Amino acid sequence: MTRRPPPKDRGAPEKRRHAPAPPSDARGPFRPALPDVVALYGAHPVRAALNARRRKLLTLYATETALPRIKDLAHAAGLEPRLVDARDLERRLGAEAVHQGLMLEARPLPEADISDIVSNSGIVLALDQITDPHNVGAILRTACAFNVDAVIVTERHSPEFSGALAKAASGALEFVTIVAVVNLARALDEFAERGYARIGLDSEGAESLSTVALSRPLVLALGAEGKGLRRLTRERCDAVARLDLPGPIKSLNVSNACASALSVVTTRLG
Amino acid sequence: MTRRPPPKDRGAPEKRRHAPAPPSDARGPFRPALPDVVALYGAHPVRAALNARRRKLLTLYATETALPRIKDLAHAAGLEPRLVDARDLERRLGAEAVHQGLMLEARPLPEADISDIVSNSGIVLALDQITDPHNVGAILRTACAFNVDAVIVTERHSPEFSGALAKAASGALEFVTIVAVVNLARALDEFAERGYARIGLDSEGAESLSTVALSRPLVLALGAEGKGLRRLTRERCDAVARLDLPGPIKSLNVSNACASALSVVTTRLG
Repeated sequence: MTRRPPPKDRGAPEKRRHAPAPPSDARGPFRPALPDVVALYGAHPVRAALNARRRKLLTLYATETALPRIKDLAHAAGLEPRLVDARDLERRLGAEAVHQGLMLEARPLPEADISDIVSNSGIVLALDQITDPHNVGAILRTACAFNVDAVIVTERHSPEFSGALAKAASGALEFVTIVAVVNLARALDEFAERGYARIGLDSEGAESLSTVALSRPLVLALGAEGKGLRRLTRERCDAVARLDLPGPIKSLNVSNACASALSVVTTRLG
Repeated sequence: MTRRPPPKDRGAPEKRRHAPAPPSDARGPFRPALPDVVALYGAHPVRAALNARRRKLLTLYATETALPRIKDLAHAAGLEPRLVDARDLERRLGAEAVHQGLMLEARPLPEADISDIVSNSGIVLALDQITDPHNVGAILRTACAFNVDAVIVTERHSPEFSGALAKAASGALEFVTIVAVVNLARALDEFAERGYARIGLDSEGAESLSTVALSRPLVLALGAEGKGLRRLTRERCDAVARLDLPGPIKSLNVSNACASALSVVTTRLG
């Protein structure tokens, strides 16, 4: 089972793949920003990367406080942690980053194709240009918990698969198969050829997710908040369904919608 | 139906109730920070407050771009918007705030007690010291969508019910009955006296939420990420149940857990 953020070189802009390099005077004790090096921070993301060993690990930075808790795991992964100040990490990652004294520089995860997907739960998520890293991170965490077989993203208009997204995913980034595609509509065609049912989720969907015809394997397509599913995505779905929401607000945060939909779908499919 | 953030004066620290005042040179065209004045920003929160009229509205600030879209609604609510620069809003709210050119100063929502809760769905959420405003905001949005009758929070160790929380709630803050209590365990006793079943949610719960005995009315108690439910909260629950999560990561973001649990509970209760 291979994984693939960042995407293969298919003309997607290179800048999408890596967090913007901080100004050179903010690098502190860190190496210069390099292509194909991503930064993971926070206890769960860093520990998961050290445990999962799905990617090449380069350098682990830890504060004096964090060091004792990570040392054994780092050594087991063949890394000697480098001591840094919390202020160095803040300068490198930004003041908003909850780094918990840990940062790991590593290669991106290996790339995966639709043909690489191993069917366990029989459920795949397709994210139609969801750009918010916190939402996509929470979706990955939920996808991992529900044993989703893969998450399909678009090469463009997807967030960086590192940093804030990895933190929100709480380690799940290392476990979920992610497939980046150039054209989501074409990918949905390919899933149909492989026997997948395709259900789009939309707060104004004509059918209820509680009653719409479902079968395994299944692709569940989620759109960005506000924009929803694009027309070409919607047209590729066998049905567009809504969550049954009786209250005065009919739409959920997209990661909450994903969690609710996966509960409904997995309960119904048994 | 009345609402109650911020809480009644029961000795909770005053500072919890309001966002910290920015330095005086950052006030720009805005009035000085006052007690019992909260700031809402972003299109959904501001529009919902103008529409719902559940609270006293004081001053609406809008950028030149945002003004035409809000003017009629503002006038209908008896407000004359004041023109401001986006930079003024950024200085006042912080660079992270997605203000969308709109900020509304208003009184906090009216306070509510457990006895004020009107039973519609028969489901109440209890948040056990969940402090992250984005999570609590997303929970309020989801609670609103599922027509939850009330959300119980603790007076201490809860976020401000304005600003970033209101933005994440996407307008739901104006619709959900929020009850702030000094002592959550005692509040759960009161719910028991009122005939509520009390289910705690915990990733290591002994029972599955899919099979645990459920009845209406019901309190669903959620703990903070990492900490989970406190012992006294857990002891007041009739059962502590887990979501059925087959994957390698067994815990969800708390707002995702809430959405998943509400789907399971509402489906089971019909």
